[in-house]
Amino acid sequence: MTAPEELPRSLTDLARAFREKRLSPVEVVGALLGRIEDEDEALNAFITVTGERALEEAARAEAEILAERYRGPLHGVPVGLKDLIYTRGVRTTMGSAFFKDFVPDHDATVAAKLEEAGAVLVGKTNTHEFAYGPTGDRSYFGPTRNPHDPARISGGSSGGSASAVAAKLLYGSLGSDTGGSVRIPAALCGVVGMKPTFGRVSKRGVFPLSWTLDHVGPITRTVEDNALLLNVLAGHDPADPYSVRRSAEDFARNLRRGVRGGAVGVPGDFYFEHVGAEVGERVRETIEVFQTLGASVRVVGIPHLWETLKAQRLTLAAEAYAVHEERLQREPERFDVEVRERLMEGERLKAHHYASAQQVKLRAKDEFGRALEGVDVLLTPTLPIAATLIDQKETDIGGYDESVRSALTRFTGPTNHTGFPSLSIPCGSTASGLPVGMQLIGRPFDEATLYRFGRAYEEAVVGDRAR
Amino acid sequence: MTAPEELPRSLTDLARAFREKRLSPVEVVGALLGRIEDEDEALNAFITVTGERALEEAARAEAEILAERYRGPLHGVPVGLKDLIYTRGVRTTMGSAFFKDFVPDHDATVAAKLEEAGAVLVGKTNTHEFAYGPTGDRSYFGPTRNPHDPARISGGSSGGSASAVAAKLLYGSLGSDTGGSVRIPAALCGVVGMKPTFGRVSKRGVFPLSWTLDHVGPITRTVEDNALLLNVLAGHDPADPYSVRRSAEDFARNLRRGVRGGAVGVPGDFYFEHVGAEVGERVRETIEVFQTLGASVRVVGIPHLWETLKAQRLTLAAEAYAVHEERLQREPERFDVEVRERLMEGERLKAHHYASAQQVKLRAKDEFGRALEGVDVLLTPTLPIAATLIDQKETDIGGYDESVRSALTRFTGPTNHTGFPSLSIPCGSTASGLPVGMQLIGRPFDEATLYRFGRAYEEAVVGDRAR
Repeated sequence: MTAPEELPRSLTDLARAFREKRLSPVEVVGALLGRIEDEDEALNAFITVTGERALEEAARAEAEILAERYRGPLHGVPVGLKDLIYTRGVRTTMGSAFFKDFVPDHDATVAAKLEEAGAVLVGKTNTHEFAYGPTGDRSYFGPTRNPHDPARISGGSSGGSASAVAAKLLYGSLGSDTGGSVRIPAALCGVVGMKPTFGRVSKRGVFPLSWTLDHVGPITRTVEDNALLLNVLAGHDPADPYSVRRSAEDFARNLRRGVRGGAVGVPGDFYFEHVGAEVGERVRETIEVFQTLGASVRVVGIPHLWETLKAQRLTLAAEAYAVHEERLQREPERFDVEVRERLMEGERLKAHHYASAQQVKLRAKDEFGRALEGVDVLLTPTLPIAATLIDQKETDIGGYDESVRSALTRFTGPTNHTGFPSLSIPCGSTASGLPVGMQLIGRPFDEATLYRFGRAYEEAVVGDRAR
Repeated sequence: MTAPEELPRSLTDLARAFREKRLSPVEVVGALLGRIEDEDEALNAFITVTGERALEEAARAEAEILAERYRGPLHGVPVGLKDLIYTRGVRTTMGSAFFKDFVPDHDATVAAKLEEAGAVLVGKTNTHEFAYGPTGDRSYFGPTRNPHDPARISGGSSGGSASAVAAKLLYGSLGSDTGGSVRIPAALCGVVGMKPTFGRVSKRGVFPLSWTLDHVGPITRTVEDNALLLNVLAGHDPADPYSVRRSAEDFARNLRRGVRGGAVGVPGDFYFEHVGAEVGERVRETIEVFQTLGASVRVVGIPHLWETLKAQRLTLAAEAYAVHEERLQREPERFDVEVRERLMEGERLKAHHYASAQQVKLRAKDEFGRALEGVDVLLTPTLPIAATLIDQKETDIGGYDESVRSALTRFTGPTNHTGFPSLSIPCGSTASGLPVGMQLIGRPFDEATLYRFGRAYEEAVVGDRAR
């Protein structure tokens, strides 16, 4: 094995290099730990770096490779986990003072699956406190910063995961997404983030924010990497009551098939209203790319999107309060003040409005299903804006004032309510160099098509750099 | 075809007699219409009797039989429908002033399925207003009375269906069950009532009381009749978002296999606490019958039943308010005062309590599932009491005062929350001649086993009379 002169760009290439014994897991993990040491003080993407343990795991993986014993497709690959995913023996804080010293006695199902597949845990990544915020700047352990401009937010709540992957401190990391918490930081940091179909990935051992809206998903540098991670994560888990029975599949199976003859649906309003000028331009440019690649584009209608978003927000607020009620009553002062105030808004909501919000969910599933009837994917901006400044509360979008929180979750929230899979992919930058993301939304359990479209775009635009 | 000297007791025998041309549908329907004419003034089981239309349908069925064209297993069989099940061209009132003149332009899926199977609609049966009450004595069309004592309630909300079947005015009828509304009147009137597994029978075109708790099920004179009706009703309906994909099955397939070697679980507490002395005796006697038939009996534990019941009641109150909010705000005076007051209780409930109640549901499914792991069915009283007087609000159960409404729904409500199938079967009477019912609870989608145990009991106790 040789030392890594220049590390491979993608997780896919790295895993291949390990299998072909061209690189050493110990040396790669060592190199990443060195980068983290150098750069994470500025970014604050990690709450816990599992340095020694990671080197031991890497040594074990390396010995296995030399003995031709491969655990799985991620053998030797260093990964991170958002710090609300339980890890046995490794502190898991939820970004909160309440759990700052909490060490779980069991692994989340997804943590166990990654280990079974051979992955090496490098660290636990920073999260907005209890995952309740899309900015990533409210954590007991301080704000996570955007590698493209450290004065700006990473986005959240899975901000540490996205920031670390974007800064090349990690090849992949897991996040959770309740109103956009995987896709938002992925878009703001310029990486790929997937919210899979509700029930596709187990949530056992993942600290809840909202039982009926939480999803776990991967954040990576490329689309192919993302599919590779989802291959490992997906599958029925009887220990998670929301987990669905679906047989295993290879999400990367169609990646190189292209999109010729395919169809992209572009929702005519809502998703393109009140969008920043540069963001709107970048996303409209992607439409032309898909046309150039041979896909047809059609405008589709999805009614009641504001009501769907409102129903998702009400559901989230009510469930988040239920999750934290006891802590709020016992030790309110241990919460971040902004998170606590938001949690308290959930207290006064009415049960019949919650019940009606679940009827809105059924209608929204139906409406998204209809919009997808004649097309393969829906294309929208992931967010109406690029990264805002840390602690910034309000944003002006073409003369329209909106709270940053509302703006950031406006386009991602609806598919948390429907449970439909949604993928955020980088699609260029603003003039000041801040990343822009587009969102592809697919039919339930059709993540493979999202990856196929995402990969075709990525290859067309960034070519070899994306592989 | 010959005139019905003495009509067959069971729907099963009647359907056979039609197939074998031993009886005429026109004459049987005519005979039932005559009985309804004579007896329903006292019972008030029907809101609408579809006399002429029923005779026409019977004539059509008869002509088809003579031409050897059979639509299905219910060919020529007269049935009733609770008057919140939509019937095209036939008034459907929900037992309410709001809908007293409402004529739907489409059939509920279950109404269409019955017609496809050859059934003849004889009438729409009385219901507690909007199905929101277990007593059956609050309907815009007046209270339904118990055939065993007209001073007493039929139970509800599907009181008309149970009363008419018990009084031999119908061979079978459909009800809906949100907290026990099929099983309660079945038990109080001495007939068989099934709440199938949630999602098993379509609710399209059935006026909702609570979206996540409502079930549609058959009420019949015998267990076999009930299985025959469920055979026709069950099946996936894409138009009902709660309908589940299950392949068709014959629920009567095991009816004569007996229960030797089977196991009955008896929950040790909750279901046998605060039970009237005579009711308790009758139900305990059934345990001995199952033992005599070769089944083993074991005490099983189901924790948190009170919390499960509380969660079901909160869910019901919140959803019922959501269903009726607009009517309550616009024309509150058109509701029955008791129903309106109960509906208004749903207004003030908190969303986070509703959200937590859905977590209790998941736990309850798990706990009922565990209780059923080593046994085929669970056996409980359907109700702690026999029929109370019309308008009676409170009841004394062994020195313990309880509202009639609470007492009547105490043992049936939990399986509305879990969605597990539950069957009520007559098991004798009190000294004053009031029927007592036992409840068999089964695993999800295992209605066939409930029917097998119910039929074995029925045959052992009532013998030929039950066939």
